[in-house]
Amino acid sequence: MSSAAQTRIKVGIVGGTGYTGVELLRLLSQHPNVELRAITSRKEDGMPVAEMFPSLRGRVDLKFQTPDSAQLDQCDVVFFATPHGVAMSQAQALLDAGVRIIDLAADFRLQNLANFERWYKMPHSCPAILKESAYGLTELNREQVAKARVVGNPGCYPTTVLLGLAPLLQGGNPLIGTDHIIADCKSGVSGAGRKAEVGTLFSEAGDNFKAYGVLGHRHHPEIAEQLERLAGKPVGLTFTPHLVPMIRGMFSTLYVRILPEALDTDFQALYEQHYAGESFIDVMPAGSLPDTRSVRASNHLRIAVHRPQGGDQLVVLVVQDNLVKGASGQAVQNMNLMFGLPESTGLTHVAVLP
Amino acid sequence: MSSAAQTRIKVGIVGGTGYTGVELLRLLSQHPNVELRAITSRKEDGMPVAEMFPSLRGRVDLKFQTPDSAQLDQCDVVFFATPHGVAMSQAQALLDAGVRIIDLAADFRLQNLANFERWYKMPHSCPAILKESAYGLTELNREQVAKARVVGNPGCYPTTVLLGLAPLLQGGNPLIGTDHIIADCKSGVSGAGRKAEVGTLFSEAGDNFKAYGVLGHRHHPEIAEQLERLAGKPVGLTFTPHLVPMIRGMFSTLYVRILPEALDTDFQALYEQHYAGESFIDVMPAGSLPDTRSVRASNHLRIAVHRPQGGDQLVVLVVQDNLVKGASGQAVQNMNLMFGLPESTGLTHVAVLP
Amino acid sequence: MSSAAQTRIKVGIVGGTGYTGVELLRLLSQHPNVELRAITSRKEDGMPVAEMFPSLRGRVDLKFQTPDSAQLDQCDVVFFATPHGVAMSQAQALLDAGVRIIDLAADFRLQNLANFERWYKMPHSCPAILKESAYGLTELNREQVAKARVVGNPGCYPTTVLLGLAPLLQGGNPLIGTDHIIADCKSGVSGAGRKAEVGTLFSEAGDNFKAYGVLGHRHHPEIAEQLERLAGKPVGLTFTPHLVPMIRGMFSTLYVRILPEALDTDFQALYEQHYAGESFIDVMPAGSLPDTRSVRASNHLRIAVHRPQGGDQLVVLVVQDNLVKGASGQAVQNMNLMFGLPESTGLTHVAVLP
Amino acid sequence: MSSAAQTRIKVGIVGGTGYTGVELLRLLSQHPNVELRAITSRKEDGMPVAEMFPSLRGRVDLKFQTPDSAQLDQCDVVFFATPHGVAMSQAQALLDAGVRIIDLAADFRLQNLANFERWYKMPHSCPAILKESAYGLTELNREQVAKARVVGNPGCYPTTVLLGLAPLLQGGNPLIGTDHIIADCKSGVSGAGRKAEVGTLFSEAGDNFKAYGVLGHRHHPEIAEQLERLAGKPVGLTFTPHLVPMIRGMFSTLYVRILPEALDTDFQALYEQHYAGESFIDVMPAGSLPDTRSVRASNHLRIAVHRPQGGDQLVVLVVQDNLVKGASGQAVQNMNLMFGLPESTGLTHVAVLP
Repeated sequence: MSSAAQTRIKVGIVGGTGYTGVELLRLLSQHPNVELRAITSRKEDGMPVAEMFPSLRGRVDLKFQTPDSAQLDQCDVVFFATPHGVAMSQAQALLDAGVRIIDLAADFRLQNLANFERWYKMPHSCPAILKESAYGLTELNREQVAKARVVGNPGCYPTTVLLGLAPLLQGGNPLIGTDHIIADCKSGVSGAGRKAEVGTLFSEAGDNFKAYGVLGHRHHPEIAEQLERLAGKPVGLTFTPHLVPMIRGMFSTLYVRILPEALDTDFQALYEQHYAGESFIDVMPAGSLPDTRSVRASNHLRIAVHRPQGGDQLVVLVVQDNLVKGASGQAVQNMNLMFGLPESTGLTHVAVLP
Repeated sequence: MSSAAQTRIKVGIVGGTGYTGVELLRLLSQHPNVELRAITSRKEDGMPVAEMFPSLRGRVDLKFQTPDSAQLDQCDVVFFATPHGVAMSQAQALLDAGVRIIDLAADFRLQNLANFERWYKMPHSCPAILKESAYGLTELNREQVAKARVVGNPGCYPTTVLLGLAPLLQGGNPLIGTDHIIADCKSGVSGAGRKAEVGTLFSEAGDNFKAYGVLGHRHHPEIAEQLERLAGKPVGLTFTPHLVPMIRGMFSTLYVRILPEALDTDFQALYEQHYAGESFIDVMPAGSLPDTRSVRASNHLRIAVHRPQGGDQLVVLVVQDNLVKGASGQAVQNMNLMFGLPESTGLTHVAVLP
Repeated sequence: MSSAAQTRIKVGIVGGTGYTGVELLRLLSQHPNVELRAITSRKEDGMPVAEMFPSLRGRVDLKFQTPDSAQLDQCDVVFFATPHGVAMSQAQALLDAGVRIIDLAADFRLQNLANFERWYKMPHSCPAILKESAYGLTELNREQVAKARVVGNPGCYPTTVLLGLAPLLQGGNPLIGTDHIIADCKSGVSGAGRKAEVGTLFSEAGDNFKAYGVLGHRHHPEIAEQLERLAGKPVGLTFTPHLVPMIRGMFSTLYVRILPEALDTDFQALYEQHYAGESFIDVMPAGSLPDTRSVRASNHLRIAVHRPQGGDQLVVLVVQDNLVKGASGQAVQNMNLMFGLPESTGLTHVAVLP
Repeated sequence: MSSAAQTRIKVGIVGGTGYTGVELLRLLSQHPNVELRAITSRKEDGMPVAEMFPSLRGRVDLKFQTPDSAQLDQCDVVFFATPHGVAMSQAQALLDAGVRIIDLAADFRLQNLANFERWYKMPHSCPAILKESAYGLTELNREQVAKARVVGNPGCYPTTVLLGLAPLLQGGNPLIGTDHIIADCKSGVSGAGRKAEVGTLFSEAGDNFKAYGVLGHRHHPEIAEQLERLAGKPVGLTFTPHLVPMIRGMFSTLYVRILPEALDTDFQALYEQHYAGESFIDVMPAGSLPDTRSVRASNHLRIAVHRPQGGDQLVVLVVQDNLVKGASGQAVQNMNLMFGLPESTGLTHVAVLP
């Protein structure tokens, strides 16, 4: 407790008007070791944060500021909850001032620069910083995150697919065929952000279900790059994201084929051992059917492993809250690691059900 | 049936990319006496309608056209499913060409010009046409609509409030106090239209309930003007619209106080007699609790009259589909009247439940 | 028109209080060649149908009757919208009276009796009638349906999977590997019926997404039996149904691997040719992303064929309204065939969007 | 902190399988001064709580027990999250063992026994205990709750209506007419509980809006009794509850008429002063439009006071989470008071938005 008091982390947030921004505010305003110092929005300069988000009335007294007036260089860490491209434009100056960076956009997710430029339609402005950055999938990269100056917080889909498949791949000696991995993923609408767009209006996305990005989605190269790192070789990935008429929640159904030599594996035991001791990864009992509400507003990710009829097809079910473990919660988890706090500090909320 | 074949009405639609537009298309494409001739959208010029709205694939072959190329003057009637102000800018030219007009926006709803200009922030460009226009609340203005060249189709809220109270007011000899009429109204989100706005995103309007426009809503002067016409004297109206996390549907809860001299009235009988013979107005049995889905996608409006504990407070419950009886369905009903067809032609769809 | 008047089909419905029942009533009450004669419910004997379903007020005047008083043997056709096992108990008597039968439950879906008994936990009481019955997937079995006395209307999931894969299998010479077919299917909650159960309460199924039946679902053997019939050999099927927080709608994402010898196939053209001339099957243009609302309350089923990165994985997307093409609409389509009417009679409703 | 450690309250819950039960578990499992000792359910005896509610995995290790084996008499306080009638049957025995009681059902809400028996269809079995019990609307009865052995936790609707009107009534010298108070209230579906019922199925309550209980609702006498206590005289109340297609949240729109002698009152200031210093009551700035999500999963209740056109009609808008401030949160707030803890202990969660 005394050390906690010592590490009162001074935090700044760039771009606080979106859903990952307000979720950071929800989590950080309840975090015992955080002092919220500044939050920026050029457009809303001067507006109290709690006026835009009345859920924060009485809890967050900050006003939105311009980046210039926010004195972000006085912070210990700055979160970027911004469009792609913003974090990399400000990274060097902050690093020079000794500020650590956690980017919730894609600037520090892809080590493959060609893929970054192809999918995000912009050149990368600081490849050197990218090279030293850590990919912030905490459970898979704990050591690198702990000592990183810059963390690229993973996309929401990649978090579920990678944590769902890691036990099958790790060690570079996969138990499954890696040339035809199928990730059939379903996301709540908040994953699309708080932008005014026709496609995510209530009357468009409500009482409706659709696939999107079948011919190409930005999370595809991110997932593939990390799967290849885990598998130690190229992988073939079919990734189909779908939009679910719910606000929060992500459900990924993963289909892989067990290699002949691995058919005797006890996959339930494998997963349980792989994630033993993890605070936020819950390998459910055999036969379980997770639902997204079981992690609503919490940082947990639940996994169930199925092998229908005992055959060679494995079906892995993964749920998370896309705004928490899939975004802002994992960012806070990374911050905890980076500042020597217990990883679950400020992240112990029980899921809201119903 | 033979006369129906004779009156194949040539129809144009201005502004077909919003919800009232696509609902007109759904209804008119199934109407036995309509020939859809043209639909305009400057922005989507050249795009097949069915590409924007795949529900119409195989049913509507039109492409969006610019107003200039659409030859609207060749139509018998033109519907305006546009922002306020568009219909009045094109009305004179169409009338000169012998085309009748049904405006689903507000240009021909308010006879009080000062109110129009105050609430819609624009001068009225054709007061003379306004003066000859009919207010298209079909059941209350049948004769005027039948002979009108221009119909101002009512707002969705006014349709429920006016039909819900008309039996109590008509004749200019109200049975209720008219100085404190309360209309607590609830609308599905489609009432806000198909504009890209943050407030009606799924993640904002979903799993949420709120009031809006408490300090002023454009339908207030429209309701008041018509109530005063029905009551034959000034009325005091408190109107509170609310937003419900559903797509279609409107529910109005109306609170009025019975005058002492009217306490002996059998209100159930009064309503049943008032609306006897109406195709679309359903006075439900005493004690009924209507729900919005009972009229989903249909042109019906259902009313239940309650008098709690037999006191002097009357509670009138009204439901409609805001896009059908509250907008496009009533517009087609008016068209039928204007062209001598049975009023329910093409409007006999049974509500979709569940 | 005159022939239509001649074939006024006398229809009875057994078990009209569920969702397939009320959907039959919606469709049949608007069908030009149908006379609704009787609807049964032991429990609701004497209650007007429109009291339970106010959407039918003014359109359906029937009261629920007991099976005994309903004189079903006077009908031309009886629909069973009942729990599994009811139709087979009454089939012989009706056939003896010359009445044709369309069962929306599972009594006449599976030719494999062992599978029926295993999955539905009851012996089959009339295997001979089962043997002569037709599997009512209209587009695949048109000739058998047309002359059948008994039709087993398909399950909702099977309809999407079978129509989605048929062009790849037909002829018994599949273009795809059939040992690892994956059907990742998502259904609206109405598919679970109108039974009082905790799991489908609004507060349980709303704002939530989950898989179910991963270890075994009754539609698995039905899909497999028909796939094998189409492929002319055994198939391996992984079928994962999921529950979507929407009322109507079904979306199936089908993953199959193209055989090496079929890699040159133009799958878009294949599908378009296969379904050319079908009233209800819409093969969408290449690159399309169907959504469930594009078929809401209509009998259409839309298909989009994707081949990501031009590889050997095919992703077929299929949408339908589970209560229409997935149940009651297809039942009416079968009735039309059986009575010599044009297949789309009474089924031309445009989808309700939004 | 040290005193907190001293008061580790031993808590039992009777009837933990409903929504108020699981919400108690969510709140109490995160409460720093609570030790969860036992939770009962006859039906689920032996089942781990976290198996029924996976959101509690890793957080609540209890199993459901029968009331007999649960040793509730060893607890400091027992919450009843049960059907009406259960708490009163067990109250005397628990009180004899020195256990305090907080009942979330209606057994200790109504002091008027005739009303209790009329509305709940059962005799009251312990009127003496009822007489000594406190009505647990914390902000209005703080002193009585603090010293009570038995607290009747208020209904969800009464909490909003009473807190919304209290500033206008208190002192027995109302500023408003009390003969025609109108409460138009809207509740999320979770208010109906976790019972298997057709009316609250997703496919019935979703995408739908309806009124219910217009002719009589159990919360009517509860609201009236408390309003009369606050006003010091009889009141006339019209109360219309409605069902909103959302899970959590309650919105009450209250209509009252300002008395002539009170027309000069600054109602905004009145409310702000009345609730100054309250942790959970948020009087929003003039002109505000609260929405239910601004209190989702939090114990806050927000109020906005409107006076349209400066007339004599006052419109008070109140929002709460029906399961938190409207039920389990307020119950914990009462527990805190009863055990000398700061009132907001364990209740500081920020609302979950979006």
